[in-house]
Amino acid sequence: MALKVARRGKVPPFIAMEVLRHANERAAQGHDVLHLEVGQPGTGAPQAVIEAAHRALDREALGYTEALGLPVLRQRIARHYADTYKADVDWRRVVVTTGSSGGFLLAFLAAFDAGDRIALASPGYPAYRNILTALGIDPVELEVGPEHRFQPTPELLSRLERQPDGLIVASPSNPCGTMLDRGHFEALLGYCRERGIRVVSDEIYHGITYGMAATSATELHAEAIVINSFSKYYAMTGWRLGWMVVPEDLLRSVESLAQNLFVSPQALPQHAARVAFDAKAELDGKVAHYAENRALLLRELPKAGFDRLAPADGAFYMFADVGALTNDSTAFCQQMLEETGVAATPGVDFDPARGHRFLRFSFAGSTADIAEAARRLVAWRR
Amino acid sequence: MALKVARRGKVPPFIAMEVLRHANERAAQGHDVLHLEVGQPGTGAPQAVIEAAHRALDREALGYTEALGLPVLRQRIARHYADTYKADVDWRRVVVTTGSSGGFLLAFLAAFDAGDRIALASPGYPAYRNILTALGIDPVELEVGPEHRFQPTPELLSRLERQPDGLIVASPSNPCGTMLDRGHFEALLGYCRERGIRVVSDEIYHGITYGMAATSATELHAEAIVINSFSKYYAMTGWRLGWMVVPEDLLRSVESLAQNLFVSPQALPQHAARVAFDAKAELDGKVAHYAENRALLLRELPKAGFDRLAPADGAFYMFADVGALTNDSTAFCQQMLEETGVAATPGVDFDPARGHRFLRFSFAGSTADIAEAARRLVAWRR
Repeated sequence: MALKVARRGKVPPFIAMEVLRHANERAAQGHDVLHLEVGQPGTGAPQAVIEAAHRALDREALGYTEALGLPVLRQRIARHYADTYKADVDWRRVVVTTGSSGGFLLAFLAAFDAGDRIALASPGYPAYRNILTALGIDPVELEVGPEHRFQPTPELLSRLERQPDGLIVASPSNPCGTMLDRGHFEALLGYCRERGIRVVSDEIYHGITYGMAATSATELHAEAIVINSFSKYYAMTGWRLGWMVVPEDLLRSVESLAQNLFVSPQALPQHAARVAFDAKAELDGKVAHYAENRALLLRELPKAGFDRLAPADGAFYMFADVGALTNDSTAFCQQMLEETGVAATPGVDFDPARGHRFLRFSFAGSTADIAEAARRLVAWRR
Repeated sequence: MALKVARRGKVPPFIAMEVLRHANERAAQGHDVLHLEVGQPGTGAPQAVIEAAHRALDREALGYTEALGLPVLRQRIARHYADTYKADVDWRRVVVTTGSSGGFLLAFLAAFDAGDRIALASPGYPAYRNILTALGIDPVELEVGPEHRFQPTPELLSRLERQPDGLIVASPSNPCGTMLDRGHFEALLGYCRERGIRVVSDEIYHGITYGMAATSATELHAEAIVINSFSKYYAMTGWRLGWMVVPEDLLRSVESLAQNLFVSPQALPQHAARVAFDAKAELDGKVAHYAENRALLLRELPKAGFDRLAPADGAFYMFADVGALTNDSTAFCQQMLEETGVAATPGVDFDPARGHRFLRFSFAGSTADIAEAARRLVAWRR
């Protein structure tokens, strides 16, 4: 007899990860591949974190921690909010998670029931939409463009037929890198607060900005769920360690869910990550390096015909409107990979409706790789 | 305005983790606590794994791996099935997960929709029930007792008013430690196959057995979802690394879900865990030590009045019927912790209906701790 296969399990793939797999397969066949498809720093964790991990490997039993994480790490994260944003965050509201991914799952399950509706910018991080769908929550896409700096606005929310139960906001955003300045962020959060719309603020790209300072929802709105991670600024993607700042009214649900869904976050990264907050000089050096790559691409990409780029205020992406070059960015990216070895992610990952006209380059890799990619693209399109 | 708090987020806590937190708080206040509440080995990862982790820390970038895990680890896990069970498992069906917890989430979302029904033994691992509830799946509890060796049977399934869509089976089980022998396991899987009931086989306690050999569903039933982990036999709880063997018809869903829900499993444990399979001598030494603890408790617990114990064929738990001593095992455990310093988990964690008459001791700790706990309990109950 046929066995159950769930409809909700049939979510779209995370295309960036699919491209990564294809690119790795090509590399394994001996092709020369430049990885501009995946959003991860080309360099690893700060040296102090590596050293702390060595020490923890030798000294700690590395058993389960409490489900919400090691108190000493939660306290250090709370202090980070005081240091960086002058925000007063009680450490008991800080929850350590398995990457930001674990935080999204906990946030969505704690705050929203099946059938609820969450608004989010499109283009946006595809996993938002796909996790929501798997959990029976309806994503309500706000079509954003250059005229909104690719960010949600109160006006876009007010135009919805029915008010959503929640809103996801990410500043800097993925894939566009655009940011909300403090005034616009405050207006958006105020609009949501007045209407009882629960805000999930994805702050994973905080720290990686090129002039504008990032505002944290913790500065403005104690009822927002804030999600962050050691993956991007702290350059620890494969460590899968993140955190949330959880409003009081969701804390008990988040704890019970975390106990049942994860038992505990991984021990070793928790012991090691604390010192990442003291590695500011090294980490800001990485940001300076992204800034160099960004300037390089802003200079070179237009020579290859990629001249309509979202303003990358932060993060490490160039989201390019390639509508003048193709109407099928998936095929375009495939051809580009085959003919130049440059891997990029087609825009349909971020925007199913309009993404066939866009693609995303990540510039988090080494400057040598980014420069070589630009050189090949210019030669290719000439 | 009031913000959404989800009904489905209000799952019960995982009580063992609650007791752990309370026990840790007592220990922090200077009390002498013996941890028999949490199911984790008292010793850590095999030495070879620690060494491999040191090497990976120095040599690897520790970025995202592919969402299904490092092929070299998936291949090594597949070989483990050939070596241990003479089962032929294609490595492409092996999926590396964030502990067995990550595997359950992927399995449930890939195979079952909201409203589906999954049968499972009660008493059983509480997170099954609580994850299912959070995902809108109805757990259908099969009341098992000593007469069923605390395991599901075709007869119990046939007595259900409506056939379930799935069945979770765990042999050895938690909290009882009882096992299905090969004949009974085969009959149960055969019953399910004939009726189109999707089986999830939790094999996390495989390797920790005291006489009877564990049968893997991979030997019998290619449509079963098998879940396992490095946490128990491999003594790597805090590393949060597990795996699944996924039937062909679910593989694409599991991959898309894994990409979106987790991006990738943690890199460092993946690099290190491979050598755990070659640490058999060290790991079997740990099992010999659990066997010693088990014998000690089987000898001593009855002297303290805990004389109705489930037959612990495997795992590292004694599930005690304390109905003659109390009708409120939660209060009983609390009192026991306060008066003796011995932490145990009340049975309501595993069986909401009948668990007030039961409690679970974990004997995975050091023999010194287990012996001291037994000594205190005997003195306490005298």
